[in-house]
Order: sequence, then structure tokens, then C-alpha cells
Amino acid sequence: MTADASHAAQEAPRTVLSVDAMGGDRGPAAVVAGIARSAAKNPEIAFILHGPEKELTKLVKRRKVLAGRCEIRDADEVVTMDAKPSQVMRKGKNTSMWSAIEAVRNGDATVCVSCGNTGALMALSMVRLRKLPGVNRPAIACLWPSRNPQGFNVMLDVGADIRADQHDLLQYAMMGASYARNGLHLPRPRIGLLNVGTEEHKGRAELKAAHDLIEEAAKTNDYDFVGFVEGGDIPSNKVDVIVTDGFTGNVALKTAEGTASLISELLRAAFKFSPLSRIAALLALTSLRRLRKRIDPRRVNGGVFLGLNGTVVKSHGSADATGVSSAVKLAFQLAQSGFAERLAARVASTPTQRQDDETFHSESSGQK
Amino acid sequence: MTADASHAAQEAPRTVLSVDAMGGDRGPAAVVAGIARSAAKNPEIAFILHGPEKELTKLVKRRKVLAGRCEIRDADEVVTMDAKPSQVMRKGKNTSMWSAIEAVRNGDATVCVSCGNTGALMALSMVRLRKLPGVNRPAIACLWPSRNPQGFNVMLDVGADIRADQHDLLQYAMMGASYARNGLHLPRPRIGLLNVGTEEHKGRAELKAAHDLIEEAAKTNDYDFVGFVEGGDIPSNKVDVIVTDGFTGNVALKTAEGTASLISELLRAAFKFSPLSRIAALLALTSLRRLRKRIDPRRVNGGVFLGLNGTVVKSHGSADATGVSSAVKLAFQLAQSGFAERLAARVASTPTQRQDDETFHSESSGQK
Repeated sequence: MTADASHAAQEAPRTVLSVDAMGGDRGPAAVVAGIARSAAKNPEIAFILHGPEKELTKLVKRRKVLAGRCEIRDADEVVTMDAKPSQVMRKGKNTSMWSAIEAVRNGDATVCVSCGNTGALMALSMVRLRKLPGVNRPAIACLWPSRNPQGFNVMLDVGADIRADQHDLLQYAMMGASYARNGLHLPRPRIGLLNVGTEEHKGRAELKAAHDLIEEAAKTNDYDFVGFVEGGDIPSNKVDVIVTDGFTGNVALKTAEGTASLISELLRAAFKFSPLSRIAALLALTSLRRLRKRIDPRRVNGGVFLGLNGTVVKSHGSADATGVSSAVKLAFQLAQSGFAERLAARVASTPTQRQDDETFHSESSGQK
Repeated sequence: MTADASHAAQEAPRTVLSVDAMGGDRGPAAVVAGIARSAAKNPEIAFILHGPEKELTKLVKRRKVLAGRCEIRDADEVVTMDAKPSQVMRKGKNTSMWSAIEAVRNGDATVCVSCGNTGALMALSMVRLRKLPGVNRPAIACLWPSRNPQGFNVMLDVGADIRADQHDLLQYAMMGASYARNGLHLPRPRIGLLNVGTEEHKGRAELKAAHDLIEEAAKTNDYDFVGFVEGGDIPSNKVDVIVTDGFTGNVALKTAEGTASLISELLRAAFKFSPLSRIAALLALTSLRRLRKRIDPRRVNGGVFLGLNGTVVKSHGSADATGVSSAVKLAFQLAQSGFAERLAARVASTPTQRQDDETFHSESSGQK
């Protein structure tokens, strides 16, 4: 069974995305509103939506733009935000999250999108889609507003795994570079390794080891290694891909979001302070909207799971229609670029499997 | 020799701060401009300034407000930003940083302020001032703009040590609570432990262990433990003190600063975009200045080293006159509150020295 066959197929073949309707903080209504918004903007997308059939049918019927473009697959159970990944793996077969991943596994859809529990989504994705050959720890990559010409950096891992040794960090560099090449159209991305200082002697032992591995691998791969970068460099034009472990990356991501949200709150308050500033705010409305669009976390919503046989986009748990639509847009772009296949080819050709082979360095430099 | 004796002493005794004039990115001119600004605002401060005598004498002479309030101690050498702490400890006796710490060690000054190399400053402070009895790893605490009534949270460690086990994290909680009580006047601060999720099963093993230790110690100490907090909670009104290891804390701090600086850059650009928005910016000038003052990292400049026999304030390496003046203000407040003595008393009474004593829990709960 292919996804196309299950659709009305009144037009050219569409890119099918598998969307978990449940598990987000705002429930299925926000998810359906989000995919409807994407459907209205982009006639090439179709959806398979997973969750309780009765409820979803009602929600989808209200959106005319989804008619004939949204198959519903019934799944009674929901993975809650506090569910333990291990339990979901054992008992989660009837959940909407499981069903959404299964559609990618079966080839019915190209990319899966979910707002649910990150740990459970990663655990299920690993078990059902399996890791790419040669990948030890998959990672979650996110896009980060930056001073780059392309307007975004890629940062990974932002929360797939709280651990990462030097070999994992090298793989993150490879996977992040591949994402930057295919997702941001950068033929030769600049890679930086996140640390507490840019001097080479600083930081943890595994970071020093990773520094040398990533530098060495740069000789035979299409990226430049800029060395250690600090938290303040993340939004800079020094670097396109920032590599770190999932604990640090997750804290950094949420800290940046928290900072942006505090500032925008203070900004609103500043503009309400006096009658004069209220007038100013009115005049500046367009400028402020433009800025808001640029830094709004909802508009860069969507972490991508890298290192699996299939692509999974994790949207924020608190995503509203705008957030869901932004995650869908990212999923569509990755599906279109054939990213999963390219990443698989790149990882298969990296030296990470041979990490203990002492002869590797001389071999690979001989191939230059 | 006391500091008062070495001054003109034309007035009531002043609080003497020891200031390292060298090692900052902007050189001694910025430091002298900063202390002059503080001197103009606060007649109760006097300074001992450390660095090359000839250069400093020239700079100080130009500031009339410093006349009779700034002793200069000659030190020829400078700790550079890329100096290794171990080398500074062995060969740094003639540096301005060493001299600045020595003045606190001798009792000539109450608090030391430096913009220099953080690692070297911490290493020298540990060797010369020594750790408080019962403290394993000293920490750097910073103030973080937040939605709290007091406008700031305390976060530690933001970079003294890249490692911290559960016992260190418990001590950070104690020290951070003491800082919040004395520096922010919060009789019962709320403490949170930084993690990648608020669920109790998440995160690294040492974080789970620290969670239980800090929760247990809350019973007999004057703080409330709110459990795990995430990066987004740092500027929230959920918590007054955020505890984390120095690697994570440093990345979070620099990431937040980088985010704030990106946003303010984009805000400036937004207001220059069209003639209308330029007019708006003019009208909103006061509001924007107020906001800028609130989130300007220079105005919350100054990390405090906690856990030593004496207080050291680390200013940003890139601090300008405003930044230095802000660090001096913090140093003055801490000197006035008798913070060092209070912290020492608090740490001495905590159960952390008895961390391996299994009978501790029943004993302390018996005393409740």
C-alpha cells in the first residue's frame, strides 16, 4: 500500500508527511489548525494524521483545505509528556506516536512530525526506524537565528542523548554538515565545537579529543573546522554548525528561548509605559513585527532527528498552529531534498566506524 | 599596615576595594574610567589599584574624583587572556592580578575586582585566599535578569570549575542561598537545579543524587527547593537561585548574552528600516533606554567567587567603564554586608563535610 493510493489522487503525486496529532500541550486542534495552514500555503503536501479517529475526523472536516489530502489513522492511546521512554517502547503500540513513526517505516510517508514527548519519540524512532549503519548516537538538530547570510545556524545535539563522547561528537559534526549542505544549501559549512573557551587547552577531556578528530576529518570532508566556539558565538557569523552534547545543547536552546521571551515581554512593557511610547509602538509596528518574525521561536520550530533510517521532525510540545505549520514546512523541505538518503551515504563514508584503527589517519591523508 | 593608614584619610573610614587594572580587553584606561565613575557616585569607596605604576599614575591623575582615594601598587607583569592558570600560579608573583588578590589576603582591602583571565583569577584566588573549611569546589555566581520581584536571579557555577558532583552541587545550593540572602535580601530563597527536564527521572546520575541531597538539606536550612528547572526557567519567577556545574552554567550565561546582543542588534536595524520607524524610535527613545538598561549585560557585570576566605568579583574581560563601575558597585555592596563572614558561618554549619556519614540523615531530622 502506498500513500498515494490511499488518497483521492486528483492531482500530481504529493509529498506525504506523517503527523502525530496527539501529545502536544495544546491538543489535536492546534495540530489540525497547523497542517491546514501548511496545506493552504503549499499544494504539494498531503498528510497522514494519527490519533483517535472520531475526534480527528471532526476537526479535519472543519478545514476544507484538507479535503482529500488528509488520511486519518486511528490510534486510541496518547504518549503523555511524563511517560517514561522505556514504558512507551514496551507498551506504546496503540499510541498515535507509534503509528506516526510506523507510517515512515512502512514507506507510506517520507517524514514524521510530532509535538509529543521528546524522549519517547527518540526511543521509538530508534527502535522502529533503527540507527543508520555506523551511527552510535542519533542527535536532534535545530535551526538557530544567527547573523549568517542564511539567517540560521544548525546546532546539534539539542536533546536526543545527554551523553556524547568524542566519536559521537565527530559523527554530530558529519551529520550537522550534511544537514547544512542539504537543508541550508551551504556547500562547505563551517563547524564549531561548543566549549567554555576558545583556547585549545580548555574544557573536558572528550572535547579536546573531539577537537582533534573533527579537525583531522575536515581534511577529507566538505567542511571547515573553526575549532572551539563559546555560547556567545552560537548566533555569530563565525560558524554554521555548532556541535555539542545533548545536555549542554538542550540547556543552551532553552536558555536562549527563555532570554528571547523575557526580552520581548520587557519590550512590550516598555512600549506601554507612556502615551508617547504607545504612539511610537504604533508607528514602529511593521518594524517590530518583522523583528518578531525573525526571532519568534515558533517560526524556527522543529528539531530534526539525525542518524536514523528515516527523518523525524520534533516540534515543541507547546507549539500552536504557527509552530506546527513551521515544523511541517521543515519536514516538507527535507522530504523534497532527499536528505535522508544523502545523509546515509555521507555517514557510511565517514571514518567513524574505524575509530580504533590506528592506520586510518595515514590512509585518509594519502587519499587527499 | 591597614588600607586606611595608607590613604589621605581626610574623611570617615572608607570601604577599600582592590582593583586589578590590567588583563581586560580594553586595558587600564577603561578600568580607571570605571572606578572614577564609581568614585563620583559613591563617596564611601576607596581603591587600591594594581598595575604598572607609571602608566596608572598618569591615568589616575586625569581623574580628579580619584585624588586621595586611589593608592597605586606597582606590578609590571600582566596575566594574558590565554595564559594557563598553572603557569600563573607558578610564575605570576609580579602580575597585577596576584598583587590585587594579595591586598585582600593581607586585609588591606575587603574585596578584589579583576577583568582578567577567569581561570587564572580562580586558580590564584584558591591558592592565595584558600577555600573555606568544608568547601570542595568554589563557584562563580552571577546575577541574571529575571521576572522576580527583585529583578535578578543568582546562578552558579558559571565557570569556576567544569566539573561538579552531587556534593559540590549541594554546596553550590548552600552558597547560592547565602548570596541571595545577603546580596538580594531574600530571607528564604527558592533554589532550583538546572536539568534538561523537570521530571525527576531525567538527567545525569549526579543530578538525581544532588536533587535528593538538596531536598533533604532544605529541611534544616533557610531555603525552599523547587526541584529541577530548565533553561527556559532561568529568568522566571519560579526560582531565585539556579544551581548547575560550571561547564553548563558558563555555556548558558554566554548563550543568553549572545541572544540578548543579537536581539538588540536586530532591534536597532528594525528601527532604521524606514523613515516611519526612525520617527518611532525617536519617540520611543526613553522606553528603549529603560529596556536597554534592564537587559544590558554590562549593568549586571560581575561574577562573584564563592567559597573562599575573601571575596573576589570577576568582571567581564570586555568590560568598558560602565561594566567596571557595575562590578565595583557589586563589590562594594558585598563588602558592606559582611557577606564573606556570613557565608563562612553558613558553610561551616552545613552537613556537606559529613557526606559519607550514613547516620547524618536521622541525626539532622531528629534535630528538627
